[in-house]
Amino acid sequence: MKTAFVGLGAMGYPMAGHLNTHFKTLVWNRTAEKAHQHSNEFGTVVLDGFAMLQDVDVLFTCLPTTREVIEVLEQVLPYLKKGGLWIDCTSGDPVKSLEVAQRLQAAEVTYLDAPVSGGTTGAIQGTLSVMVGGPRAEIERAQPVLQSFASKVVHVGEVGSGHAVKAVNNMLLAINLLSAGEGLVALAKLGVNLEAALEVINVSSGRSNATQNLIPQRVLTREFPATFALGLLAKDAGIALDVARSSGASTPLFALTESLYKAARDTVGAAEDHTAVVKMLETWNGVVLK
Amino acid sequence: MKTAFVGLGAMGYPMAGHLNTHFKTLVWNRTAEKAHQHSNEFGTVVLDGFAMLQDVDVLFTCLPTTREVIEVLEQVLPYLKKGGLWIDCTSGDPVKSLEVAQRLQAAEVTYLDAPVSGGTTGAIQGTLSVMVGGPRAEIERAQPVLQSFASKVVHVGEVGSGHAVKAVNNMLLAINLLSAGEGLVALAKLGVNLEAALEVINVSSGRSNATQNLIPQRVLTREFPATFALGLLAKDAGIALDVARSSGASTPLFALTESLYKAARDTVGAAEDHTAVVKMLETWNGVVLK
Amino acid sequence: MKTAFVGLGAMGYPMAGHLNTHFKTLVWNRTAEKAHQHSNEFGTVVLDGFAMLQDVDVLFTCLPTTREVIEVLEQVLPYLKKGGLWIDCTSGDPVKSLEVAQRLQAAEVTYLDAPVSGGTTGAIQGTLSVMVGGPRAEIERAQPVLQSFASKVVHVGEVGSGHAVKAVNNMLLAINLLSAGEGLVALAKLGVNLEAALEVINVSSGRSNATQNLIPQRVLTREFPATFALGLLAKDAGIALDVARSSGASTPLFALTESLYKAARDTVGAAEDHTAVVKMLETWNGVVLK
Amino acid sequence: MKTAFVGLGAMGYPMAGHLNTHFKTLVWNRTAEKAHQHSNEFGTVVLDGFAMLQDVDVLFTCLPTTREVIEVLEQVLPYLKKGGLWIDCTSGDPVKSLEVAQRLQAAEVTYLDAPVSGGTTGAIQGTLSVMVGGPRAEIERAQPVLQSFASKVVHVGEVGSGHAVKAVNNMLLAINLLSAGEGLVALAKLGVNLEAALEVINVSSGRSNATQNLIPQRVLTREFPATFALGLLAKDAGIALDVARSSGASTPLFALTESLYKAARDTVGAAEDHTAVVKMLETWNGVVLK
Repeated sequence: MKTAFVGLGAMGYPMAGHLNTHFKTLVWNRTAEKAHQHSNEFGTVVLDGFAMLQDVDVLFTCLPTTREVIEVLEQVLPYLKKGGLWIDCTSGDPVKSLEVAQRLQAAEVTYLDAPVSGGTTGAIQGTLSVMVGGPRAEIERAQPVLQSFASKVVHVGEVGSGHAVKAVNNMLLAINLLSAGEGLVALAKLGVNLEAALEVINVSSGRSNATQNLIPQRVLTREFPATFALGLLAKDAGIALDVARSSGASTPLFALTESLYKAARDTVGAAEDHTAVVKMLETWNGVVLK
Repeated sequence: MKTAFVGLGAMGYPMAGHLNTHFKTLVWNRTAEKAHQHSNEFGTVVLDGFAMLQDVDVLFTCLPTTREVIEVLEQVLPYLKKGGLWIDCTSGDPVKSLEVAQRLQAAEVTYLDAPVSGGTTGAIQGTLSVMVGGPRAEIERAQPVLQSFASKVVHVGEVGSGHAVKAVNNMLLAINLLSAGEGLVALAKLGVNLEAALEVINVSSGRSNATQNLIPQRVLTREFPATFALGLLAKDAGIALDVARSSGASTPLFALTESLYKAARDTVGAAEDHTAVVKMLETWNGVVLK
Repeated sequence: MKTAFVGLGAMGYPMAGHLNTHFKTLVWNRTAEKAHQHSNEFGTVVLDGFAMLQDVDVLFTCLPTTREVIEVLEQVLPYLKKGGLWIDCTSGDPVKSLEVAQRLQAAEVTYLDAPVSGGTTGAIQGTLSVMVGGPRAEIERAQPVLQSFASKVVHVGEVGSGHAVKAVNNMLLAINLLSAGEGLVALAKLGVNLEAALEVINVSSGRSNATQNLIPQRVLTREFPATFALGLLAKDAGIALDVARSSGASTPLFALTESLYKAARDTVGAAEDHTAVVKMLETWNGVVLK
Repeated sequence: MKTAFVGLGAMGYPMAGHLNTHFKTLVWNRTAEKAHQHSNEFGTVVLDGFAMLQDVDVLFTCLPTTREVIEVLEQVLPYLKKGGLWIDCTSGDPVKSLEVAQRLQAAEVTYLDAPVSGGTTGAIQGTLSVMVGGPRAEIERAQPVLQSFASKVVHVGEVGSGHAVKAVNNMLLAINLLSAGEGLVALAKLGVNLEAALEVINVSSGRSNATQNLIPQRVLTREFPATFALGLLAKDAGIALDVARSSGASTPLFALTESLYKAARDTVGAAEDHTAVVKMLETWNGVVLK
């Protein structure tokens, strides 16, 4: 089986490396230099000309948004191998991905949406979790390639479901993080010891990944390491609200949070780490969380 | 050292039992029967007449709200031992507790706010966490009695800080739970497999106590065991909003969530388990989470 | 100049009548009976066969949503007169209308979005206001036909702008109405005289069409006359949020309000008058506004 | 009948002038200079020593918040004439005012809460509206003095009701203004002509005092004349939320709006005109409303 990997960002770079230890892998990146670096580091083959895709069985994409996936689709569609798989690890848009799936189906290629979680650490260690949407039989077929970089592969539903679950997960992250920020801002203004407060919250019912990991490691340290950009989380919150609205659901917390993250993106900065959303609250409230 | 325990509810009942294994403990409950039952089960002494408090060194209260604490205060104030401690494990109101502390100070009694977390399981096993507000020296003095039912005692700040942290914790619980409900409602309407979705969220960045424990154990099972009432969580959300507003903080998610829990309390039912808040979302959206 | 009017609802029926006093007008309705009734009442000609559109200069649509406009488009596209105008008075979706405009442009027909305000009274009296989007020259051309039922025609911008302004107007209506309901619910619970409160609000800075007209006439009387359905206002709130989100704007009140109207639509009833949104607040709060 | 007026701000200054044309009036201001200026301009008598209150029948207060009313109360309580009236035109806090009323009742003085609307123009012209809370008989007694500066006096309920209605009015103002800003920001980003949009909204169902007066006169002109401070509107929004919460009501739009005005106050500036709240939206969205 031959694979290709498009999108060598913070996640895709190590994922493609793991893939190549099991399957011969071509790599492509918008800035070609990155692909050459990858080839040197992992022994992958640089994809220089999309005609090379003609005997690729499984094509991976791992791009910032579905927009870039569609841009790639426009270029590579004539060269795809019939009967192949397109596995899209982008945190993408389920509605637009349905259109991608239909266009690929017309070309006899099966599209699976397969966003991942686990962060750069999980990508480097090959222990990501994958939430996959698509036909069960095709997901079975995809198992071996997915397992080259994932320790958990979960089939969540039809095509688009993977993106929907990923978007909901990231919206929950967004809400848990912002609400923890609100609580800590209030406690800080009252003079409460924030580390002590988190110590007890983190063995109590209000705990979340935000209180247990993100706030202590990234906010209270004032490090805000830019591993996952605020602009991308705002984008994902938008997709989650799209998901909810496309289902006709009334989701007031999702709705409000999306607006607040857009405001944060535009006032704090899209390229900042997502945890820097608390800086908006700090500005509003004249306090620093530390 | 002699102690007394007022309020033998789902939490207080086992807490007072643990206390009595280390310190001679008097017990009191609004319905006296419960106190007699406790005496039979644990060998505690029923407090029948507040004059018996005159040689009690540490008085515990564990009541639904600060209102009941104040009602007890009115009755027992003349009988309190000078130099004693009043440890209030109620999930109470920090502002009203300051008034309690002042009145007790005038009677030469030190008030500590010491709400607990860990649920009925933690209370039965004696492994609660306690978040304590008050003077450091007095908290040191309280350590031995607190450790009789707690495995973690954290000093979070001045008097009222314990209540403030507990309220914030419970607001975070409220938000994490409601937002998880919003996400699952949307996913359910789209036909996504909810158990699979939770499986992957629970190893991803959006995970919280709500997604890891409450939703799978209480909601998807449709059991909604009434261990912590929706009305009490709505009350705690109100205290958290009071805390935030008393600090002057702008906290939009806290503000919205409090309103939504009030609506849920009045449409779903105050006595239902707190996780039944999702039933409001289910009604709004014509879907059942299972 | 020959015109046709598609959609003889509560608004379109009298509008087409006014149109026919100035221009020969064909009429069509999903239930043909309504068209025959209109013909009898106003002397219009029933459009029975879309081939009759071939010499129509201006085609009006006034339908519940853009979805129905597109359904009509599919059927009539082959018969439209080149160089003609399509004036869409639907409270429609600006994004989808752009697609309609493009398809019509390919058929050499100019699309103008021209939603109206003024309610059924304005429609009957021929004193509607029209907010029009499209090329200025074409709007000039449309003036005579629009003025047959409107006393004010305002050019607000490019194609889609009419729909965008109408959606924003209706969202403001939705917010003004719901927030007035919140205020009155709170005042009612405190025993304040609501009519007296409105009397003074209505000469004060908080006044709006909701406090001046809708609440006194429709809510406090408990009449809720179903002239504009809650389901349609919820739909318009959705379009307004789409408008805001398509522009990339952060609009927290719009976002929250859309969710609340969806909840009201599904719990109070889509066919109820839009002012019945307050019944959701009444249920939440155990009070009746009267 | 002899009167006194405490608080010669933008509203109180002309009100006390009108009062003095009908009733002999003493005036007091925190900065005494203002009182002397008033005396020169209107022939009022400067109150220099609170003992002068001993034969005053009606004492007016018109101060920024109830906090200042209580400060005045502390100073003047020993000198108040038994059987007199205290008419408080402050946009005050209904709960705290109940305490003021009780303390005055003990001194045999009747407290009426009587906030006004109509702005500085209404104050100068003597055409304010007054919303009064208190016993009906006492309000009858107050009519002549109130009518010296008001063209409308409405009895809205028991003591505190005047403040409650004023707070709700101002919250509606706050919501109508902010939501209009959200809509215009979105329309501006889409290139819609804002003046044309307002022209049509202002004859449509979404119109309010904000769209009809405040936005065209203060925002689109970029004048933001500081007649009513953003900080005071944020304070009033807080009182309105207190009113709603003290009634136990669930009011999500009130709750969210209060948080947003607090953020605006602290990022745009408390001393700016209240209409400058849109500057927060402009910053969030990278657009200027003009």
